[in-house]
Amino acid sequence: MERIVGFILELDKLKGVTRKTRPLGLSRQENSAEHSWQIALLAASLEPYAPSPVNIHRVVEMLLVHDIGEIDTGDTIVYAEEGASERKAAEAKAVERIFGLLPEPQRGTFLSLWREFEEGKTAEARFAHAADRAMPVLLNLANGGQSWVENGIAHERVVRRIGPPIKEGCPALWDYLERRLEDERRKGWFGQS
Amino acid sequence: MERIVGFILELDKLKGVTRKTRPLGLSRQENSAEHSWQIALLAASLEPYAPSPVNIHRVVEMLLVHDIGEIDTGDTIVYAEEGASERKAAEAKAVERIFGLLPEPQRGTFLSLWREFEEGKTAEARFAHAADRAMPVLLNLANGGQSWVENGIAHERVVRRIGPPIKEGCPALWDYLERRLEDERRKGWFGQS
Repeated sequence: MERIVGFILELDKLKGVTRKTRPLGLSRQENSAEHSWQIALLAASLEPYAPSPVNIHRVVEMLLVHDIGEIDTGDTIVYAEEGASERKAAEAKAVERIFGLLPEPQRGTFLSLWREFEEGKTAEARFAHAADRAMPVLLNLANGGQSWVENGIAHERVVRRIGPPIKEGCPALWDYLERRLEDERRKGWFGQS
Repeated sequence: MERIVGFILELDKLKGVTRKTRPLGLSRQENSAEHSWQIALLAASLEPYAPSPVNIHRVVEMLLVHDIGEIDTGDTIVYAEEGASERKAAEAKAVERIFGLLPEPQRGTFLSLWREFEEGKTAEARFAHAADRAMPVLLNLANGGQSWVENGIAHERVVRRIGPPIKEGCPALWDYLERRLEDERRKGWFGQS
């Protein structure tokens, strides 16, 4: 019990890991804990749009644990292309440490979920990736492109970087987003890359 | 798709609903979205301590949706005894509105999970309640009783209010907490009721 409590209190640190996006109507930055909660519910809501049947419980649980390595590494915007393999290695080390606070079987269960997400090979992992990638797009579409404008991310960079994983994991979601993104591009609030 | 997006953006408001507890090491108050994420993982970690086998996926999903009504009502500390039935009625109305943004079957699925939690009759709901009640206790035990001191909550009030649901839902967790609470009572940082 002491080890489980140590793990849960360690998780508190993810509430302090900030992302580039701001919650709608708030001036502060979003953190990775509340983001994880929201994308778990996004995936659960999107289940009827999965391109093939998925075990939605595994998708939800994968999304709840997928960002935990950021406790040690911090969050990096998805458009940062340099140093990606070093960041991944650091995150893998971080989750070994953090999930290692737990006894078995939970340690192994959480590590497998995290690895399945990272490898991105199963239908569940691909669907989870689509939800994770889509959420900041949905927030940006609702707030005038806040994190793209602030970080100078252009329309074609958004489409190139997050289009393929969303299209692969949830084609109906990409159809919707592609249309919305094109509408917004015409309005001209995208930053310049 | 438009309705799912409307629902998910509505959920963003839960990131702005503050609780009495502060995340460890941060000066701001915790919000109900990050709290929901953390207790879902607490329940998943505690699964081996469930007094009878539970469907842990349903527990996790119940915890992810259980606070969504607070978007309309705000959070109330568990020790507020007056007006409880009015608050519950307002929350029930709120979740009808919020889950009603979604198409079926998701609307019905989320509403059933929310009601199962509220009714607290199934083994899953009782286990979920134990995780929900235990989390602020664990945070208070780790931060010098911050929310109890600030709100004048005495030891016997904590034990009386959260002891029964935690003991019922997860007896091993209560054994642990009861011992820790008694140790801390002797240190004298509990507020006076």
